[in-house]
Amino acid sequence: MSLLVVGTMAFDALETPFGKVDRIIGGSATYVAWSASNFYHDIKQVSIIGGDFPQSEIDNLAARGVDFAGVEVVKDGKSFFWSGRYHMDMNTRDTLVTDLNVLAQFNPTLPESYRDSEIVMLGNLVPAVQMSVLNQMRQRPKLVIMDTMNFWMEVALDDLKKVLTMVDVLMVNDSEARELSGEHSLVKAAMKIQAMGPKYLIIKKGEHGALLFHEKNVFYAPALPLEDVFDPTGAGDTFAGGFVGHIARTKDISFENMKTAIIVGSALASFCVEKFGPTRLQELTKEEIDQRIKEFVELVNFDIINVA
Amino acid sequence: MSLLVVGTMAFDALETPFGKVDRIIGGSATYVAWSASNFYHDIKQVSIIGGDFPQSEIDNLAARGVDFAGVEVVKDGKSFFWSGRYHMDMNTRDTLVTDLNVLAQFNPTLPESYRDSEIVMLGNLVPAVQMSVLNQMRQRPKLVIMDTMNFWMEVALDDLKKVLTMVDVLMVNDSEARELSGEHSLVKAAMKIQAMGPKYLIIKKGEHGALLFHEKNVFYAPALPLEDVFDPTGAGDTFAGGFVGHIARTKDISFENMKTAIIVGSALASFCVEKFGPTRLQELTKEEIDQRIKEFVELVNFDIINVA
Repeated sequence: MSLLVVGTMAFDALETPFGKVDRIIGGSATYVAWSASNFYHDIKQVSIIGGDFPQSEIDNLAARGVDFAGVEVVKDGKSFFWSGRYHMDMNTRDTLVTDLNVLAQFNPTLPESYRDSEIVMLGNLVPAVQMSVLNQMRQRPKLVIMDTMNFWMEVALDDLKKVLTMVDVLMVNDSEARELSGEHSLVKAAMKIQAMGPKYLIIKKGEHGALLFHEKNVFYAPALPLEDVFDPTGAGDTFAGGFVGHIARTKDISFENMKTAIIVGSALASFCVEKFGPTRLQELTKEEIDQRIKEFVELVNFDIINVA
Repeated sequence: MSLLVVGTMAFDALETPFGKVDRIIGGSATYVAWSASNFYHDIKQVSIIGGDFPQSEIDNLAARGVDFAGVEVVKDGKSFFWSGRYHMDMNTRDTLVTDLNVLAQFNPTLPESYRDSEIVMLGNLVPAVQMSVLNQMRQRPKLVIMDTMNFWMEVALDDLKKVLTMVDVLMVNDSEARELSGEHSLVKAAMKIQAMGPKYLIIKKGEHGALLFHEKNVFYAPALPLEDVFDPTGAGDTFAGGFVGHIARTKDISFENMKTAIIVGSALASFCVEKFGPTRLQELTKEEIDQRIKEFVELVNFDIINVA
């Protein structure tokens, strides 16, 4: 199924208890593309970058089947820049710098060849831009997946709610699900959020795994217990990329296949956190991915025959 | 496999955001016995109670196969009393009152008929008493399971470490595992704790499920997402009771069967939190338990055939 991805492509400066890096590529669409391109090789990328974005990074993604026709290059502009510092527990972080740069003028016009995409992955971005992308599609895509964050709930809730009515799958973390719904219980939160539009809700819980809700059905995907989390940046986008890449490849948007897609996404995310930024994703082999997915199967496999 | 359970039998006063109860039976051994007796009916109970402990509660447990020969009754004494108040998120609580009462003089002498038990479940209790019970066994039990809490790490760490060398399976929650090991990563914590004695470590993460570590093997058991948690009191002991009851019934102490036992324990714990104290456990049917275990199977079941 043809796949359109919209999101940021950026530079990040990152500081974790294990080290720091002053300038590394990042952005939601960068991570989604690196992750999804392990499974699907016709990714219609929509983003905006400055003249400073390295040609080598573009070439590497293009070689993996990422189409840059929808990526606007502002030659004399600077790419979006974000800088953050993680706390010791790696679950919380402080934003040190946010320089929008060219992102401030991001108002994408989709190339004609993009407008029939069957799957649209809306990476974390200002809701108005997410909506504009959906409005440019020739027909309603078969599957619209949206990532967002608490920031947009606080500054653009009305727009966010409008986009939600156009979305099939929402991906948020547990605190965002609670904030959006006003419910502490994730089961109740899931019911309220489904009533806002998305019939599928994925709640990402970091080291505690992920939940998929759909009507009365729930699926609990574990996270692989890791010895170290080196840098969590991009893990959520990498998860989204694995999810959407698996669905695009298998052409199957059923609940059952979404469960498998979540395991694939979780496996990719477990690699992402092993090194700074997208470094680990950029050196990943198919054998490593297959082995990691096997570890996830082992992790949750149990025999219930012996129960009374 | 014959089963010995040691722990407290008590009264609790409980306050949650959903209501309060001034006096309800509780204590680690009470919850373990109610839970385990769904699966196994020869439970050698070791505890101490005052003359105020209701005969009807004793009769109800005795009718389920719980042997009271090892429960000391101090006729003119009062049973252990604990009072606590849960915060809105149900993950944290304040202890309001701890009246040790007869527990202060708890120094159990095991009946002869108890000393060959094959499984010993050490409920949360002062480590010196846990050790005294193990020292009275005629031979080393086939499986020793121990529950404990952060309080004992702070006031009786040396004794706790001695008991750990005599234990096969340790059950603690995630913050206790971190405190005991001094490691934030649960994978590293598990390695350190295994080096202290227990070859199996179960880390309970409440709404995030439980992890079982053994050498290089890890199993991740989910928790059932619940609409409401009414009262978490006793959930950990109920989990332990389901775990140990399943093992006693199936006579199988393998890692594979421990995984199933964790699912059984998780299912029982998911009932426990639905009402105050052990109320829900006292009205539970076999059909409800079977149905709940099926829900756990559904919750984690996914098909990986379709992966690249």
